[in-house]
Amino acid sequence: MTPEATLARFREYMVGPARFMTLLSCFELGIIDTLRETPGMTAAKLGDAVGVKPDAVEQLLHLLVKEGFVAHDEESGAYTLDALADVDQADLRRALTYMNMIKVVALRQLFYLTESARTGTLVGLKELYGSEGTLYGAVAEHQDLRESWATLMNTVTARMDPWFFDNIDVPSGSQVLDLAGNTGLGAIHTYKMKESPGLRVTTFDLPEKEKECLANFRAEGVDEHCSFIGGDVFEGIPQGFDVVLIKHFLDMFDKDDVFKILEGVNGSLEVGGQVHIMVPVYPENITDSDNYNVDFFPAFFIGCTMGQGGPQKLSTYRSWLEECGFKVTKAITKAPADIPPDVIPVQAILCATKVA
Amino acid sequence: MTPEATLARFREYMVGPARFMTLLSCFELGIIDTLRETPGMTAAKLGDAVGVKPDAVEQLLHLLVKEGFVAHDEESGAYTLDALADVDQADLRRALTYMNMIKVVALRQLFYLTESARTGTLVGLKELYGSEGTLYGAVAEHQDLRESWATLMNTVTARMDPWFFDNIDVPSGSQVLDLAGNTGLGAIHTYKMKESPGLRVTTFDLPEKEKECLANFRAEGVDEHCSFIGGDVFEGIPQGFDVVLIKHFLDMFDKDDVFKILEGVNGSLEVGGQVHIMVPVYPENITDSDNYNVDFFPAFFIGCTMGQGGPQKLSTYRSWLEECGFKVTKAITKAPADIPPDVIPVQAILCATKVA
Repeated sequence: MTPEATLARFREYMVGPARFMTLLSCFELGIIDTLRETPGMTAAKLGDAVGVKPDAVEQLLHLLVKEGFVAHDEESGAYTLDALADVDQADLRRALTYMNMIKVVALRQLFYLTESARTGTLVGLKELYGSEGTLYGAVAEHQDLRESWATLMNTVTARMDPWFFDNIDVPSGSQVLDLAGNTGLGAIHTYKMKESPGLRVTTFDLPEKEKECLANFRAEGVDEHCSFIGGDVFEGIPQGFDVVLIKHFLDMFDKDDVFKILEGVNGSLEVGGQVHIMVPVYPENITDSDNYNVDFFPAFFIGCTMGQGGPQKLSTYRSWLEECGFKVTKAITKAPADIPPDVIPVQAILCATKVA
Repeated sequence: MTPEATLARFREYMVGPARFMTLLSCFELGIIDTLRETPGMTAAKLGDAVGVKPDAVEQLLHLLVKEGFVAHDEESGAYTLDALADVDQADLRRALTYMNMIKVVALRQLFYLTESARTGTLVGLKELYGSEGTLYGAVAEHQDLRESWATLMNTVTARMDPWFFDNIDVPSGSQVLDLAGNTGLGAIHTYKMKESPGLRVTTFDLPEKEKECLANFRAEGVDEHCSFIGGDVFEGIPQGFDVVLIKHFLDMFDKDDVFKILEGVNGSLEVGGQVHIMVPVYPENITDSDNYNVDFFPAFFIGCTMGQGGPQKLSTYRSWLEECGFKVTKAITKAPADIPPDVIPVQAILCATKVA
């Protein structure tokens, strides 16, 4: 790579924040929806329609014209949707849900990334919200964080859980523990997608989640088959389960804490007990340009959600599981062709059995 | 453009903020300088050296390895500078100065872009600094904004002024007005680069700039040839000048205000009087992918510095000058080959003469 190419790449990085918000703002201002309803509007008419000075409409749309997302007729001044006209609305909603989460949970917080890395704490969350601890504590107290985060996670769970449950084995009548299962959605999916006589699924998470979790079980009609145990993963994992699920969780921690979790799970299981993990992974060759996990997750976990953590390679998780007393029986990464092209996380599933 | 390509492009945008801060943090944390001094360090040694947990060092460096900026030997775990080793330190400093300005002046503020566009005010500056008005007022009161902004502008001025003065004609003995000339650097450059018997350069800016401006003139030994007039461009432009310079200024305003400025300058000049303008411009074909002005400036001016404004095409400035009573005698854009590849603004010079 020549110095010129390196410096040109720096420029791509420099325009990253402005590009991100220019695109999102065109949606937030209603410019795109307005153009979808009424193609051919000028900046003056668009400005009237969305309550923004036409000069600003024209300025912000330049980038979307450059990208070919929107077309602009120089003669008449008319704008129409170009590439954006052909994108399925559900796909666009999924992308905008992710963009909203990045805006609310990450954009400002990233300013403090360097200090967060130095201190291992979320300096941005402290400065912007007066919040100590992690994002997962802050969402309980701050509606804007909660809404953008929860909306995204529900989208992700709805998309990923069918793939996860298709790929794991939950023997009939198993006693299943959903580790860090939040307010029960994973348990509900487990019961519904793996139903069998005697199947029982228990959500394990902080005690303050219990009330909402049990209400969710009742609302979904699974309260006879699902239950809740309050506790802290790092202080002891409940025993008596055949299968432990660990979804969207290991990537939140540095190696020492991942080991504490895996060793804790191992200690809670009988020999032959199983663990099923879903986690985003880095590509085995980190320079693989098709995988965007390294572009996003390090800064996101260290600067915006945990003050530590980040995914690992599939091979790393595999060897960590083995070091913690498991035999890995399955390790698969979701095929890129099965991931919508706007979606950043590349997820993997690891299944493992406790060995003697 | 297919829906898949559009959605993939959205993903590029989504990782923009995280990429930007991951790269900058690796410099801010001292990781790059440490590796330059001692190649071959592991994450553990780097972490010790810069005071960051090795897990975080490894996470943040993944992206730089992906980009080929840094090399990582999987066997030994050793990191060395790769492409970054070959980039001239002065080039790197210039890029980092720009990145620091984007971080401090733009990154968090962009969160509020949508509200800024709606209101024509700098919502981010208000929320983050309690500051009303523009960035140019806020820099006077906030050291972090001032330092990152002034450092960048000094870099830009040092790089651009020689090109500007090489391309404009300032007749011997002219009386020159540097419009919105801040604290005198433009006037000093004018005098030094265009010295002639009787040449006199006057900085015109808000009265509060006078003291520092005059001190700068004395420090540079040009106080016999340079002076200061306090005032507001929109309330009256001083008369009696042959040449008016307008550098880094027109792009801060929407069309109506640009017209007020150009009409004001026209009114202040005698027929035959000249105006020389330096301003970033958009490419005539807005879809030109080599020009990054549309990626950056709309969001930057509307969301971070003015609550309005943004550059125009060279042809637009040309026609606006003609509508305001000028004949354009020169209109040139800096050749891309003469612009370092990390530099976003593509600047132009317009020279024009007042016609009867």
